[in-house]
Amino acid sequence: MPAVQTIAALAADLAAGRTTSLELTEAAFDRIADPAGEGARAFILADVAVNRAAALAQAEASDRLRAAGIVPSPLAGLPISVKDLFDIAGQVTTAGSTVLKDAAPAAADAPAVARLRAAGAVIVGRTNMTEFAFSGLGVNPHYGTPGNPRDRDRIPGGSSSGAAVSVADGMAAAAIGSDTGGSVRIPAAFCGLAGFKPTQARVPRTGALPLSRTLDTVGPLARSVACCALLDAVLAGESPAVPDAAPVAGLRLAVPREIVLDGLDATVSAAFSDALSRLSKAGVRITDLSVPALARIPGVNAKGGFVTSEALAWHKDLIEARGPEYDPRVASRILRGSGMTAVDYIDLLEARTGIMAEAAEQTRDFDALLMPTVPVVAPRFDELADDADYTRLNMMVLRNPSLFNFLDRPAVTLPCASGGLAVGTMLVGRRGHDRRLLALARGIEPVVA
Amino acid sequence: MPAVQTIAALAADLAAGRTTSLELTEAAFDRIADPAGEGARAFILADVAVNRAAALAQAEASDRLRAAGIVPSPLAGLPISVKDLFDIAGQVTTAGSTVLKDAAPAAADAPAVARLRAAGAVIVGRTNMTEFAFSGLGVNPHYGTPGNPRDRDRIPGGSSSGAAVSVADGMAAAAIGSDTGGSVRIPAAFCGLAGFKPTQARVPRTGALPLSRTLDTVGPLARSVACCALLDAVLAGESPAVPDAAPVAGLRLAVPREIVLDGLDATVSAAFSDALSRLSKAGVRITDLSVPALARIPGVNAKGGFVTSEALAWHKDLIEARGPEYDPRVASRILRGSGMTAVDYIDLLEARTGIMAEAAEQTRDFDALLMPTVPVVAPRFDELADDADYTRLNMMVLRNPSLFNFLDRPAVTLPCASGGLAVGTMLVGRRGHDRRLLALARGIEPVVA
Repeated sequence: MPAVQTIAALAADLAAGRTTSLELTEAAFDRIADPAGEGARAFILADVAVNRAAALAQAEASDRLRAAGIVPSPLAGLPISVKDLFDIAGQVTTAGSTVLKDAAPAAADAPAVARLRAAGAVIVGRTNMTEFAFSGLGVNPHYGTPGNPRDRDRIPGGSSSGAAVSVADGMAAAAIGSDTGGSVRIPAAFCGLAGFKPTQARVPRTGALPLSRTLDTVGPLARSVACCALLDAVLAGESPAVPDAAPVAGLRLAVPREIVLDGLDATVSAAFSDALSRLSKAGVRITDLSVPALARIPGVNAKGGFVTSEALAWHKDLIEARGPEYDPRVASRILRGSGMTAVDYIDLLEARTGIMAEAAEQTRDFDALLMPTVPVVAPRFDELADDADYTRLNMMVLRNPSLFNFLDRPAVTLPCASGGLAVGTMLVGRRGHDRRLLALARGIEPVVA
Repeated sequence: MPAVQTIAALAADLAAGRTTSLELTEAAFDRIADPAGEGARAFILADVAVNRAAALAQAEASDRLRAAGIVPSPLAGLPISVKDLFDIAGQVTTAGSTVLKDAAPAAADAPAVARLRAAGAVIVGRTNMTEFAFSGLGVNPHYGTPGNPRDRDRIPGGSSSGAAVSVADGMAAAAIGSDTGGSVRIPAAFCGLAGFKPTQARVPRTGALPLSRTLDTVGPLARSVACCALLDAVLAGESPAVPDAAPVAGLRLAVPREIVLDGLDATVSAAFSDALSRLSKAGVRITDLSVPALARIPGVNAKGGFVTSEALAWHKDLIEARGPEYDPRVASRILRGSGMTAVDYIDLLEARTGIMAEAAEQTRDFDALLMPTVPVVAPRFDELADDADYTRLNMMVLRNPSLFNFLDRPAVTLPCASGGLAVGTMLVGRRGHDRRLLALARGIEPVVA
């Protein structure tokens, strides 16, 4: 496996003439095509074939533009992967399903994709995912599931499974995914990457096949927080900049008492404790904080939450027509949405508004919240054989990340030293203060790595 | 009945020393207390008694401030009425019901009320309304219903019934109401006033008892469009200004073919035709326009729409506890919301987004839409005796105004010459272009009056 480099390092190599976009793009496609690798499961292969010629042409053009002094951003010429739920003009958006295989090709790029292209990125292909993004584990019965880069017998996490493996395995310099309950952060954490879920309004969701209109967000997975910050700026339509790392000494971080530390496995517990010690030594003021608002969230979601009802609204006709072609573990969860009334849903909207305000008040004295991204390391595939285990593990991996989709707060996962399987630490910022969070995370990243 | 004057005329009288705030406020309270008048039914009387001393003190203070050269706005010192669903610090918000009589008094003024006070308005009292604002007719079985100023045997329209009568009968210089499906515009039209429903986000709804979180808006009823524009600026937290009247010649107005002209009675039909002739003669270019998006709205609302489900979410516990104390015509309609599923509701949200975009596209070439506010003149009370007639007439009066709550577009009703019972003409602007609409309406107002 080629060494995975940061966007800054790759951009510097390109700038210095040590490599070319064509070379990087060919290397990415070679890696995708390597039968010993995970490319066949990390990408929707039919589309890889379609993309190869276009991507190589784009890479050559990028090299020529660079030679002429035209470099639109540090992403220029870099191979980037796109989750299969984003529209790419001329391609069919299948979202990891087979039921959409015969759908009409997208008429236009999703704005997120168009912004990557405008920044000079080379789109290498559509990454595999949990069917319709409806699970945090990343398993896909239709296209196979890429193995975890640290242990191929373990799951990659999801739903942006292929996105994470494409980056960890050197098939793309960075990836974009979607995150409704952790679908960027879980696979990033399980695969040893950084992953960022923005405040929802920051990146347009147009042209991304929806899971939940209330909770869906669009964000990057990449080698480092700086890489994520650069992609975030591009996705948000801002100048392609990276905020400076915030000084660590004196930062005030709170570790919530409620929910997020329950049931940590030994690896995650040891890695998180070690991270806290290192942060304290670096001058961070860490507070054990009660955030009662967090404890209210599972209760108000008990009738199914936003995801099941909103997914059912989108899927009901398709399930009626072609239900047996769905992954039964996905279809059965979508159909849970039929039990919710309009009043249940409106109650949930109102409760959410209240809980968001309470949580903001209860955490206002802190620069960010800190917790393990996922309480366990990536499970082995054989741990999911049984439906009950699948459900239990799925709830477990989604538990911490999904709290901050509910609160619509920006959250970033960054790799945390563990000595073995990957462990992620999650920092959560204030709603709308996404760039401040990324600056903090840049400061904290080397301390916990 | 004292002559009803505009805010500008009253402000000029105050500025010239021809009257005082104390005199205007006492006159308003005298009119409210007149046993031959409608005060006992236009206001929630218990609160009038509470308010009188405070209002007179406020009026005296206003006169002293004016003598010292301090006049915060043209509203300074003018008696203004407030619909019973707005919080006023220290008073119980009953929203025309008896079930909330024992509720805790409001801790603070609603922002809309606080902004009126900051502009110097004297709050004369809480106006009567359809219970919980859930009907366009204005009939209230608990507090009585004020008679229409043109014919006391006819309804005032609602839900802001007391608001309209308070202004038409000289008990307030202007009023604030709420409009979810026409509750400002219908009583304004039936009582010969101007009334304005803004784009929803323009005026905060905090501290106003909700009917529909999606459709509720806060707006003024007053003698003229200029009066409404002044109150709107204050309610929106802007400088207390009135836009200049737009020149009429060359304006492009569209009369939609769909829905809004169906079933006009003879008076409304004649008055609207006459208005169109006068506008044409004044140089307005009037187009008979097909707006297919309007025809889609009744269909997507067929399962109950936003109002029943959102009202039920708010009322369910109260109806369970005290249902028999509700007006049965209100409670039965709220309970219709129990038939909607979460998916129905989400489908409706999605459909609305699409229809709003279509309607914007189909009407983009016009300065405003023009139509009768209500297709009929105010019905007589005896026409509502039967529940089926009540329902039919309620649907009839809400029909045109509610289309533009659904589309979240600003709409203003202005009096239209009719020679007898009042008729209103409604102008509808672009979403968010509220001040432009008010400028147009100021230009059109004298042509159609």
